[in-house]
Amino acid sequence: MDNDKITLAHGAGGRLSQQLVSDVIVPILGNPVLNGLHDGAAVRMEGHVAFTTDSYVVQPRFFPGGSIGRLSVCGTVNDLAMTGAVAKYLSMGLILEEGFPLEELRRILQDMRQAADEAGVVIATGDTKVVGRGAADGVYINTAGIGDIIPGTNISPKNIRPGMNVILSGFIGDHAATVMAARHGITLPPDIQSDCAPLAGLVQVMLQAAPHIAVLRDPTRGGIAAVLNELAEQSGTGVLLEESAIPIRPAVQGVCDLLGFDPLYLANEGKLVAFLAPEDTEPVLQAMHAHPLGKEAAVIGHTTAEAAGQVGIRTSLGGIRVVDVPLGGLVPRIC
Amino acid sequence: MDNDKITLAHGAGGRLSQQLVSDVIVPILGNPVLNGLHDGAAVRMEGHVAFTTDSYVVQPRFFPGGSIGRLSVCGTVNDLAMTGAVAKYLSMGLILEEGFPLEELRRILQDMRQAADEAGVVIATGDTKVVGRGAADGVYINTAGIGDIIPGTNISPKNIRPGMNVILSGFIGDHAATVMAARHGITLPPDIQSDCAPLAGLVQVMLQAAPHIAVLRDPTRGGIAAVLNELAEQSGTGVLLEESAIPIRPAVQGVCDLLGFDPLYLANEGKLVAFLAPEDTEPVLQAMHAHPLGKEAAVIGHTTAEAAGQVGIRTSLGGIRVVDVPLGGLVPRIC
Repeated sequence: MDNDKITLAHGAGGRLSQQLVSDVIVPILGNPVLNGLHDGAAVRMEGHVAFTTDSYVVQPRFFPGGSIGRLSVCGTVNDLAMTGAVAKYLSMGLILEEGFPLEELRRILQDMRQAADEAGVVIATGDTKVVGRGAADGVYINTAGIGDIIPGTNISPKNIRPGMNVILSGFIGDHAATVMAARHGITLPPDIQSDCAPLAGLVQVMLQAAPHIAVLRDPTRGGIAAVLNELAEQSGTGVLLEESAIPIRPAVQGVCDLLGFDPLYLANEGKLVAFLAPEDTEPVLQAMHAHPLGKEAAVIGHTTAEAAGQVGIRTSLGGIRVVDVPLGGLVPRIC
Repeated sequence: MDNDKITLAHGAGGRLSQQLVSDVIVPILGNPVLNGLHDGAAVRMEGHVAFTTDSYVVQPRFFPGGSIGRLSVCGTVNDLAMTGAVAKYLSMGLILEEGFPLEELRRILQDMRQAADEAGVVIATGDTKVVGRGAADGVYINTAGIGDIIPGTNISPKNIRPGMNVILSGFIGDHAATVMAARHGITLPPDIQSDCAPLAGLVQVMLQAAPHIAVLRDPTRGGIAAVLNELAEQSGTGVLLEESAIPIRPAVQGVCDLLGFDPLYLANEGKLVAFLAPEDTEPVLQAMHAHPLGKEAAVIGHTTAEAAGQVGIRTSLGGIRVVDVPLGGLVPRIC
């Protein structure tokens, strides 16, 4: 197929565009909904629906534990999960640079397919554009997703009250450390890889254990520092973290020390934080510990009436420092 | 705000990312759903839902009659309309190049807002990524959309039978001719501009007049030639067009003659073709003629049992030539 590279003609709406869809995309992503190949997919949804979108521009495109393809499915599935919804359908918008290798596109699509199957979500509709050489960095992927909001849930920063516990589902920084190490040519121990994973199943067992979880968030760009600051601001409560309770792998801390980053700001792609009432904490932790993606779940702090809108952390030395939101990014864009 | 240009920090998840959303995006696009600013929007949908996506990479970004912003709303609203659905909610995924002027971003967002208001659709959720200088061509926009499928409609190429009429809603090629002229520095008469418009309202009056319209399609990339060939192939019927019946403005024909393009392959952004039974034709045409976007609607051909899967056109000289799908694109990518 044309020297196995994407050409502008693949995006021009002619026969090569059709072939790209029928010979490359559909054999990998195909399912009864997508195979209709109409301008849009017809799906069945009932009642309260969550709707979200995210674009993926990560470099490098492949890294230990994942790829831009896997990320583009997990990220959007997770955004839906954080609204208390079970992802059902995704759309996929590909922007391809002229000259992009078809073989690499196939690997990316295979990763999307595998992640979609893991998450139980269907890629229902898609679009492909090709831009000239130098007008994109290989491939950019947008996914949007729709999902059914689990009845009885009400996830909102408005539900946050002082005295709630803050749970983190596992080790922080694995994704960002892996991607940064890959960029800088740093070799990490083989057990360190991106945590990129769909959190839909974990969220379901958590909500079964306690339907009234106040808030769920996945700490991607900006890390847990950004997410907790946003929630503190929106709810008008303070958040006090215990540094010793935050799970971080020594090798990830090592990358941070080497490159001068604070792990609180590192992006994660398979972790969540939850705010919930004290009485819900034990049942939710038990449910999380029984799930493969929640084994290291721990209470890492609590909300306070004091220091409203701010996040603080009690260090191992007993002092408290403010965890601010950086103006720009402390870490390079990696999701 | 930072010399009025997009910086990498605007995409890093820190305070500048928040400011871009709160100071630039929300004041223009804001609505009660978007203003929640959660990872996803919670919306209410019932029953059969259409879901679609499209990315927009057009150059130049502003042209007579529209812009990449207007296009990014109309295109996705129209894709939903072509499935017989009324667009309700859109997502917006922005990929911005470092250095992109904020003032231009504001104009693009204003065009999105205006088009969304025209179409009666709400931009419910969004995402912004910033890529380095040279890693994108200014701005790329993805929109995904969800809409309610109008009850009783069943739009599918499988419904096409020999003996149906093919209706076109108006002049072809206005969008592509305008964009190509802008690229080549050709001055067009002021009445020629992009036809970029939301077709949701037109489709609604058509389906009220005849709920059993077999197929609706908007002839964007590849023009009516590509769309009709696809429908001919998928339905296994032939399509015979009457050249004299296809509305085209003399100035658009002039641009085609000058640049060597066939108007049948030119992209349109505010037109549709419909396949429907003879008895439905008159009521649908009447409804279209009463709508601002369907004044020039005309029957341009019919389906045949012969020449199955092919599109032919009867020329003004009485001969019939085959209208094929080009391998790549006869016209540059302009949508």
